[in-house]
Amino acid sequence: MMNKISEEQKKEFLDELLEFLKFPSISADSSYKDDLNRTADWVSKSLIEAGCDSSEVIKTKGHPIVYGEKIVNREYPTILVYGHYDVQPPDPLDLWSSPPFEPVIKKTEIHPDGAIFARGACDDKGQVYMHIKAFQLMVENNNLNCNVKFMIEGEEEVGSNNLEDFIKKNKERLDADIILISDTGLSNLKNPTLTVGLRGLSYMEIKVKGPNRDLHSGTYGGTIYNPANALAKIISSLIDEEGKITIPGFYDDVVEIDINKRKEIESKSNFNEDSFKESLGINDVEGEDGYTTLERKSIRPTLDVNGLWGGYTGEGSKTVIASEASAKISMRLVPNQDWNKISDLFSDYIKSIIPDSITVDIIKHHGGSPYVTPEDSKGYKCAINAYKDTFGIEPIPQKDGGSIPIVPMFDEVLGLKTILMGFGLDSDSIHSPNEHYGIRNFYIGIETIQNFYKYFGE
Amino acid sequence: MMNKISEEQKKEFLDELLEFLKFPSISADSSYKDDLNRTADWVSKSLIEAGCDSSEVIKTKGHPIVYGEKIVNREYPTILVYGHYDVQPPDPLDLWSSPPFEPVIKKTEIHPDGAIFARGACDDKGQVYMHIKAFQLMVENNNLNCNVKFMIEGEEEVGSNNLEDFIKKNKERLDADIILISDTGLSNLKNPTLTVGLRGLSYMEIKVKGPNRDLHSGTYGGTIYNPANALAKIISSLIDEEGKITIPGFYDDVVEIDINKRKEIESKSNFNEDSFKESLGINDVEGEDGYTTLERKSIRPTLDVNGLWGGYTGEGSKTVIASEASAKISMRLVPNQDWNKISDLFSDYIKSIIPDSITVDIIKHHGGSPYVTPEDSKGYKCAINAYKDTFGIEPIPQKDGGSIPIVPMFDEVLGLKTILMGFGLDSDSIHSPNEHYGIRNFYIGIETIQNFYKYFGE
Repeated sequence: MMNKISEEQKKEFLDELLEFLKFPSISADSSYKDDLNRTADWVSKSLIEAGCDSSEVIKTKGHPIVYGEKIVNREYPTILVYGHYDVQPPDPLDLWSSPPFEPVIKKTEIHPDGAIFARGACDDKGQVYMHIKAFQLMVENNNLNCNVKFMIEGEEEVGSNNLEDFIKKNKERLDADIILISDTGLSNLKNPTLTVGLRGLSYMEIKVKGPNRDLHSGTYGGTIYNPANALAKIISSLIDEEGKITIPGFYDDVVEIDINKRKEIESKSNFNEDSFKESLGINDVEGEDGYTTLERKSIRPTLDVNGLWGGYTGEGSKTVIASEASAKISMRLVPNQDWNKISDLFSDYIKSIIPDSITVDIIKHHGGSPYVTPEDSKGYKCAINAYKDTFGIEPIPQKDGGSIPIVPMFDEVLGLKTILMGFGLDSDSIHSPNEHYGIRNFYIGIETIQNFYKYFGE
Repeated sequence: MMNKISEEQKKEFLDELLEFLKFPSISADSSYKDDLNRTADWVSKSLIEAGCDSSEVIKTKGHPIVYGEKIVNREYPTILVYGHYDVQPPDPLDLWSSPPFEPVIKKTEIHPDGAIFARGACDDKGQVYMHIKAFQLMVENNNLNCNVKFMIEGEEEVGSNNLEDFIKKNKERLDADIILISDTGLSNLKNPTLTVGLRGLSYMEIKVKGPNRDLHSGTYGGTIYNPANALAKIISSLIDEEGKITIPGFYDDVVEIDINKRKEIESKSNFNEDSFKESLGINDVEGEDGYTTLERKSIRPTLDVNGLWGGYTGEGSKTVIASEASAKISMRLVPNQDWNKISDLFSDYIKSIIPDSITVDIIKHHGGSPYVTPEDSKGYKCAINAYKDTFGIEPIPQKDGGSIPIVPMFDEVLGLKTILMGFGLDSDSIHSPNEHYGIRNFYIGIETIQNFYKYFGE
């Protein structure tokens, strides 16, 4: 590696990260607005302390964007680091073994050296902070051979609504050769994977409305379409018995991958279905017919309910027919599906299947297109080399099932490709209670990022 | 009528009822236990004040039962009045125009003389209190020609779990000739209906369990059976395209009513489908093929979701696959369906349709069998006469879609038939926000009950 991290530095970096994790920067909940602002200030300060020439907190219509940069030499290649300081809501709180914003370090079977338990530990504060520290080490050791720009936003978990506007207005400032993001994972620390693709996303909400008030289920049961039953019917109409999404036109733009290529991906992968099932505590997997579990989570589009509610959900029983029932439903998309088109198809289909006895409000929350890293690019090659230096072997290229909608947007607006250099593990429970991030993953990330900077600067 | 209510008494009775309605006697929520006890004490005191010889609050494993009686003469016929002082949970609170336990009187189109808005106003505190006041007037005027026993419980809204035990242990004390209950409604005050049947109830809860933790919908979407999607699938599998319940054996014991009898019921009824739709703000009704709306809500069994929940239900979006999703589902039953058998059929069916990839916990909440009032009984004839005296015309006999599971239990344990003399209106929003009860209905109820006492005592 470029610059060894001393034991003293390790402790120092970790302590700083714990401080970062204490901010409840929940972007989805407007009551945390001030906390988001405080987090942004903290990030900006940490960029200066790490060695940036300048840093600022830029206001948006939503939560602020932190921008900082160090220009070593205008002739050198420039890396634009993107990350986010906002986090997912931590609920259900009762399932956390320790409070989500009071980080603690605990050893686990997968993380014998310890893992940091906190909301945002892995997604994405822990990974953002690896970049800041890798950068700092190279500045301190005077071997940074490229320019680095940081753009750390506060609305990734709610759709990055104000980022595109910022980017469009700051094209010159953001001028770079590559974008580097650590907001994904790798398979494990022995046989690492490198993410070379992301699924797109279309996140919708539907509200089924029936009678003008909640009704007694005895007096009215059987005479009207119960919105909760109607919601269930709508949801179950979205996927058929073969696991196919039934929305007309949904698969029209999906790029089918050649069977030989599929076999090659499968053979290179170190995915193990038995351990997968065991780690989730399920008896069986389930998904689209004709595809393996690895394919279902990477190269195939999917549809999932993310939340549903309606009627009486308290203790005991209440014989009510609720006047409304709602669900949040998202779809993961693959090349070349367009998220706006898919969102429209979703709305049209639902409107087409509901009877006159109910109405449905449909809200388009946010979305993004799928993305694929070109394997013949300089950035890709530098990433492969960086991993090789750290891990001793070449990483396995793998498509990730998640979405970072701003990645295809960067390509479109800035004309820049992105390298996805993530160090989280599947078992890190991001978006779930007890999110955590391995301390070793944190240090290894700092190493690998330095290696990437070095190769990219050459 | 027997004894005219003076204007002074009207005010007094109303003020007392408002006091009764201030107790938040929510039986489903254990945190209101003390309030239930205080309500029971209040009811007991009011029975003594109305003229009972004795009254007591009897402890049970749940909320107490209030018992009071006046024995005028052991040779006289005895009426056992049943009612309940507990109420449904008031949520969703934000839909109430005034706090549920701060009763206010407001005029409405249907209630030009005013209606009392409060949880329990109609179901069942307002109706219980008509009995206490009718009784008081006859005692005060010295023209009570029958014995009256009151049994007012605190667990009707949660299944009357401890009532059967109490009744079995107090058969002698509860010895009577008829049971009289006001916990139902009538069509309107011009052409009143008399309830001659009740549906049974089976109230279930299901919890679908998938992975051992909440998961990121990007990383895992498409590979496992999402419990929320599975729940929707299960619910939608319970009713088919013709509105029939699909549980095998569900209709086996249903008594099919002869088409001529059905036509007679329909022609006698003053049910108007257009006003029904208008009052609910729906474009169309929906239900079992081959039956009218009136039939669907009275002589046919039904199945309704009463609540469902799972995953992220907050503001904005969260890309999560929840590890669990739940629903409360109840079925209304008709003669001769047995609620225990139906609950078992429900459980068996759900277990039979779920795949290996999920598990389901099924909870049987409570239930009761359907009931029919014999039209050739003395009680029935006295009720017809009592209504005739008050309203000037004979009431239309009608089956009610709701359930009072203890009515068939009274028949079984005490060998007593029940007269259902309810004065609420469909539009009173029982079990819903803004429950209310017409002041005129309250006074007319007091009149009619006195008439019934008079005829039954003759």
